[in-house]
Amino acid sequence: MTKFDEATQAIRVDENTYDVCIDPGYAIGGPLNGGYLMAVILRAAVDASPFEHPVSQTAQFLRSAAPGPAQVRIEPLKAGRTVAFARATLVQDGVPQIEGLITTATLHDVEPVHAGEAAHPMPPLEECVKLPDPKPDSGMTLNAQMELLFDPPTIGWLKGEPTGRPESRAYFRMAEPQDPDPYVLALAVDALPPVVFSAGARGWAPTVDLTWHLRALPAPGPLTLLGGGRLISDGWFDEEVEVRDSTGRLVAQSRQLARVGRG
Amino acid sequence: MTKFDEATQAIRVDENTYDVCIDPGYAIGGPLNGGYLMAVILRAAVDASPFEHPVSQTAQFLRSAAPGPAQVRIEPLKAGRTVAFARATLVQDGVPQIEGLITTATLHDVEPVHAGEAAHPMPPLEECVKLPDPKPDSGMTLNAQMELLFDPPTIGWLKGEPTGRPESRAYFRMAEPQDPDPYVLALAVDALPPVVFSAGARGWAPTVDLTWHLRALPAPGPLTLLGGGRLISDGWFDEEVEVRDSTGRLVAQSRQLARVGRG
Repeated sequence: MTKFDEATQAIRVDENTYDVCIDPGYAIGGPLNGGYLMAVILRAAVDASPFEHPVSQTAQFLRSAAPGPAQVRIEPLKAGRTVAFARATLVQDGVPQIEGLITTATLHDVEPVHAGEAAHPMPPLEECVKLPDPKPDSGMTLNAQMELLFDPPTIGWLKGEPTGRPESRAYFRMAEPQDPDPYVLALAVDALPPVVFSAGARGWAPTVDLTWHLRALPAPGPLTLLGGGRLISDGWFDEEVEVRDSTGRLVAQSRQLARVGRG
Repeated sequence: MTKFDEATQAIRVDENTYDVCIDPGYAIGGPLNGGYLMAVILRAAVDASPFEHPVSQTAQFLRSAAPGPAQVRIEPLKAGRTVAFARATLVQDGVPQIEGLITTATLHDVEPVHAGEAAHPMPPLEECVKLPDPKPDSGMTLNAQMELLFDPPTIGWLKGEPTGRPESRAYFRMAEPQDPDPYVLALAVDALPPVVFSAGARGWAPTVDLTWHLRALPAPGPLTLLGGGRLISDGWFDEEVEVRDSTGRLVAQSRQLARVGRG
């Protein structure tokens, strides 16, 4: 069991309640990473489902969950022959932190009928670059859990050279070797720096809601995260992330609605 | 009040319950159009919210609601200074039909900081074409509520010439003149024929879940619906619709996960 598996563990305490322990190792400054919290919720929801794979997860980020004990409450909504639907809420000290809907099914390893091109080509891995290590007192503990190697122009904002477009692209793998699975994908879809940094924005960009779809089970090896956005307006932006596995297959698609930071 | 406004009316009966009446005029064969049902739910959710605009709506389609009386049950989850979150469930005869999460806020009419290009260019309106009228006994009552003028290649499948890619693009307006608003947009994001028809699939393609975001309030005039998809595999497909208003502004973005029809 990897550290990530442990940090996302959900222990059933009754038919619809799971005990979890929010790990401080997934913080982005003060708050915890939303993708990590989605992975925690997903563990409980998949355990409670008659199906194996979370084909869809929506999360509304009501509040900022803190490290420590919490519960995931599952409300099964309907289970059919192909698909099951459930509500899943992350609760801490009796207060809902994240509200969610999860759809589960069973995916099979088959050849796609149609597979579009990747959202954006990536340069080879050896031309990609890491972010500098965060300052020890920055509270950016998330960075130590994963390795991101960026398409260089998409982190030009670090040296004051944003591309002017919302974009962020990187190869991704867990720091502790682990084959990607749906829980790693939940982390991956929210692992990039906000795409608006590349358009010149700064500051914490809180996710309001996020929906992602699992499209296929990922092959072992590094993932590719292709992040972009269509519109930055009125303090709001959308961030879409397409995740490809090491064979180039589309394995996950996400869109989040978030607030532009105040710098 | 237009027929669509009437068909989506939600009457508050207590703090968290609204009476609605599902109109048979929005059917696609047997089932009712999902976008219409989302608009009904949205009426109740926006009425119950402290904010004016539904910036995000997720719907899980548990069952096929039937024409006739139903209720929308609202559970307010959190209201902050900028955003409010709620759960909204469409219930008929005591049985949940659609489960949903809705995020509301107030959008302002401002110039975007960044606005990407449209997903795909459209030919001029006069080069676009209608679908043939449905057979009177087909139960396709939805078609009479709206006018869709298609980018011709994207309905080539009608004469056995699919483009081979998941795509569907059309100009959209209500048959009864009405300026587009968020409720019309909820209908619009699910108004195109399934994008998989253009990739050679046939038959009813049931939506499993759909999330859409309202990005700006639409200007009067026809909308443009740009539909596509990334992957058709294992009986599943994604359909993304980008909605532009008559000024070209991005006003809505949706993604649905659906099942390929067997037809």
